Amino acid sequence: MTPSSKPAPDSVTDAGALGEATYALRQAMIGRAGPAATGWVGPLRPARAAPTERLKVLILGAGVAGLTAAYELGSLGHEVTVLEAQHRVGGRSRTVRAGDRLHEIDSVTGRPVLTYTCGFEDGMYLNMGPGRIPYHHRRVLRYCRDFGVALEPYVMESTANLVRPPGGDTAWSNRRVANDTRGHLAARLAETLVERDPLTDELRDLLRVFGALDDDGAYPGSTRSGYLHDPDVEEFPLPAPALPFADLVNSGFWKYRFYQPVDYEWQATMFQPVGGMDHIVKALAHEAEGVGATIVLGAEVTDLTIHPGGSRVGVTYLKDGESFEVDARHCVSSIPVPVLGHVSRSGFSGAFERAVDVVEFEKTCKVGWQANRRFWEGDLEGGRDSGEGIYGGISRIGHNITQLWYPSNDYFTDKGTLTGAYNYGQDAEELGDLDPQKRLDLAREGATRLHPEFADTTLVPQDKGISIAWHKVPYQLGGWADWQPDREDHRQAYKQLLQPEGGDAFYVAGDQISPLPGWQEGAMMSAHYVVQQILGIMPLTVSEEVVVPDSVALTQGLR
Amino acid sequence: MTPSSKPAPDSVTDAGALGEATYALRQAMIGRAGPAATGWVGPLRPARAAPTERLKVLILGAGVAGLTAAYELGSLGHEVTVLEAQHRVGGRSRTVRAGDRLHEIDSVTGRPVLTYTCGFEDGMYLNMGPGRIPYHHRRVLRYCRDFGVALEPYVMESTANLVRPPGGDTAWSNRRVANDTRGHLAARLAETLVERDPLTDELRDLLRVFGALDDDGAYPGSTRSGYLHDPDVEEFPLPAPALPFADLVNSGFWKYRFYQPVDYEWQATMFQPVGGMDHIVKALAHEAEGVGATIVLGAEVTDLTIHPGGSRVGVTYLKDGESFEVDARHCVSSIPVPVLGHVSRSGFSGAFERAVDVVEFEKTCKVGWQANRRFWEGDLEGGRDSGEGIYGGISRIGHNITQLWYPSNDYFTDKGTLTGAYNYGQDAEELGDLDPQKRLDLAREGATRLHPEFADTTLVPQDKGISIAWHKVPYQLGGWADWQPDREDHRQAYKQLLQPEGGDAFYVAGDQISPLPGWQEGAMMSAHYVVQQILGIMPLTVSEEVVVPDSVALTQGLR
Repeated sequence: MTPSSKPAPDSVTDAGALGEATYALRQAMIGRAGPAATGWVGPLRPARAAPTERLKVLILGAGVAGLTAAYELGSLGHEVTVLEAQHRVGGRSRTVRAGDRLHEIDSVTGRPVLTYTCGFEDGMYLNMGPGRIPYHHRRVLRYCRDFGVALEPYVMESTANLVRPPGGDTAWSNRRVANDTRGHLAARLAETLVERDPLTDELRDLLRVFGALDDDGAYPGSTRSGYLHDPDVEEFPLPAPALPFADLVNSGFWKYRFYQPVDYEWQATMFQPVGGMDHIVKALAHEAEGVGATIVLGAEVTDLTIHPGGSRVGVTYLKDGESFEVDARHCVSSIPVPVLGHVSRSGFSGAFERAVDVVEFEKTCKVGWQANRRFWEGDLEGGRDSGEGIYGGISRIGHNITQLWYPSNDYFTDKGTLTGAYNYGQDAEELGDLDPQKRLDLAREGATRLHPEFADTTLVPQDKGISIAWHKVPYQLGGWADWQPDREDHRQAYKQLLQPEGGDAFYVAGDQISPLPGWQEGAMMSAHYVVQQILGIMPLTVSEEVVVPDSVALTQGLR
Repeated sequence: MTPSSKPAPDSVTDAGALGEATYALRQAMIGRAGPAATGWVGPLRPARAAPTERLKVLILGAGVAGLTAAYELGSLGHEVTVLEAQHRVGGRSRTVRAGDRLHEIDSVTGRPVLTYTCGFEDGMYLNMGPGRIPYHHRRVLRYCRDFGVALEPYVMESTANLVRPPGGDTAWSNRRVANDTRGHLAARLAETLVERDPLTDELRDLLRVFGALDDDGAYPGSTRSGYLHDPDVEEFPLPAPALPFADLVNSGFWKYRFYQPVDYEWQATMFQPVGGMDHIVKALAHEAEGVGATIVLGAEVTDLTIHPGGSRVGVTYLKDGESFEVDARHCVSSIPVPVLGHVSRSGFSGAFERAVDVVEFEKTCKVGWQANRRFWEGDLEGGRDSGEGIYGGISRIGHNITQLWYPSNDYFTDKGTLTGAYNYGQDAEELGDLDPQKRLDLAREGATRLHPEFADTTLVPQDKGISIAWHKVPYQLGGWADWQPDREDHRQAYKQLLQPEGGDAFYVAGDQISPLPGWQEGAMMSAHYVVQQILGIMPLTVSEEVVVPDSVALTQGLR
């Protein structure tokens, strides 16, 4: 957080004013200093003057956090080298295109088990990692704007999307599930209203509009759920018949993240980079190099040593089969903590080692498809495809695939790519344990329950399917840090990792040590935090009050 | 509706199957014939073979309906002439740009009262008529796709949008109003649950997720309403404090169309043409001319005569001060009925004349602004603008301006145009009665209650403001037909206008005589209907069952 940030204006109500005071008190308690004398005045405002002391900083990992830190420190004239184990920048921010090769390893033995190639046609792409940017992720938006990364709206939810709870024998449209549920709930509440409540008349009117109730407070169905038939000049459209409330409740539809788009991280208006999410990391890398940072690809860190007294950090890495040793005044590691756990370390505290052992990363898979016709959008020719009228958004299903994402780009063209699965936990473990063809078979089976067209392998070819099990990807080993705020060991670990090791020598960065695990904004926030610690703007020790993020809520919504 | 249209797939439930049968029965009752032998196989499938009989058709009005009919009939080889009173095509589908001149008349005397010029900079534009396309308006989408009109998403609602009911002393964010209301409503309902209801356990869980309730079924506030402060690596974000339920209910916020985006016509994913809505009418005009139609601009119809027996229609029009007479086997009038009422007519039935007298058009105004900085999006620099993070969508206010639309295009650029008012009825009458500068003053005053930046005339210059009172625009005289389904005279008039006059000679077309008044899809649907009547596909007489559209619901949402 930049020191000049203020709460959003509409929180300045009575309750907000109280929050404001608490906030100011907290800023004072944690002893935040100003950026004076360091040259750092926030991201993208490089002083470009030579620093009084030119620091030598090694950054481990060229993902969003590492590249952000490299750019900011490089902008200030410091000497920055980034070591990246893979042969590309970006880490989990990966967009696949024709010919891209994906690797997976056995997460226990570390041995390579899979290498496969993306079979998309030229010009098609799919984001296999982060896929969207909330409107309040201001750091990401700002780097995109200032680095010229073009953005377009990402559609999180269309009411044409489909919902298929496991027990259902058909896929319902989002509009029916959403609006029939709110209508039934409103009608139930309207029934309970009693005249003596001073709010009753107004509340009754609110419920009428909220739920599309009739004048008696009943829910008779609504055109919000769609029309029974296409309208006709002679026939005013009738509402689709309301789904019975018992059917909705018994389906358990809300257990399949139906209401995820209501949660703050997924509210409209969301964005995505035009042409692929990796345009952000490519721009960050380009700009970091532009301010003097060196990025070394294919450099796998094998040993870390904090020299006695913490004055320097030594790093050994393997590149092209050869071992190299470098050292620096400061080292920022954005290596995922479970991967860091496999790197030989010396000079680290016992508390740090315990923290490394505690952090687990979530298992998560994505499947990608290229379809040779955008049947979900409909052909507009009078015939009907299943689920016609779907432009972006996500269908939800009580099946291993969990989600089916439609493209929020290049609408009305012929071909398109879809995210054919996005799952977590047990589902991801099961999907990831299958070989690539079997993963596609399972994903196809799930998608066919939403769109029968998926059964057609000429329309959605098997050789244009792709999958990734992030927990098996080398140098990643998972999707995001799985923080659980109710665990004492997590509280201790989170706090420990916010504080440098070896005095001011070794820092951990990344979305893994931010309040937004799994989000690029979290990676940037962490990078800014660490940069400020290195520059002396932010204290090196954190208060007792550190709050651990709730990874489930932040990556999957209220469940 | 094309004869091959079918209900949406997800209405084929039990209740849907019943509807299907009713639908089939109805198709049979109204005696719909197939398109055989006419060459007409639906829009955009021109036979391009010479028709057995080359019909001469005069079309009055080069708006969406007139141009659609001209294109379809021209495609079949018929001889089509379109007479348009204005010096441009498009009618209400108007996009204004630098230097465009707007005219208004006294709607009683018909005398010109205003002419003014759009002061936008080059490259800026704003839709002053229709501004969005629902995903289920398949005719519009299809013409756009097939004519190469590029579309981009129109954002109807962002949770960063603002809401200011008249009594409120501040503007709330949409996310707080929406999510605190649903939380409070869910909590109230959860309180009433009794254990004997077999749905109780599941319903309690649904309410928890629906409303973000805690485990006790209470609503403690939620991050769905936004964060109290920007998140920080040391501080997991707290929810903005919940707006008290009584404040929400007493504000009457839902009376200001807050829930309009929930209604079917405004659900995601909506679209708009890149560069302005008038790209659609320009493409239609270009394609109609491409299939041989003649479009005569500046041709004001003054007299209409249905010749005895109905074999021909004679039309007199004024162009450049000169009077011309033409006649044709068929005439399709898309002239707004209140305008048609001022055209001298002979040979029309008494029932038709009564229908013309009954139809009223809604008063409606729009105001446009060019702002020299997109302060609503925020500057991303750490400082704060009011309502920061607004990318598209609509703010709602209990003020004459009613709505403030943000641009759904060219995000993150410097300048932008906004719809500074969109009102109806009494508000529109009051705004339209003011002179242009006073309209802008009133609109600025309203907008300033949402964004203080509007008070700055260097940021939002007065000479870059523009307004239109559609009820005062010559040849339009209103926004849309104000059909009221509960009025017997409206039922008779709607039915009457669906049937040609003079046997098969004179037809009324336009969104005015469609189930979607005010929508381009309605205009196209009506054009297709009339084309089918002319071709003998659709019967000339309509059934007793005609249902009158509900203009309020279809143009303004549930109120």
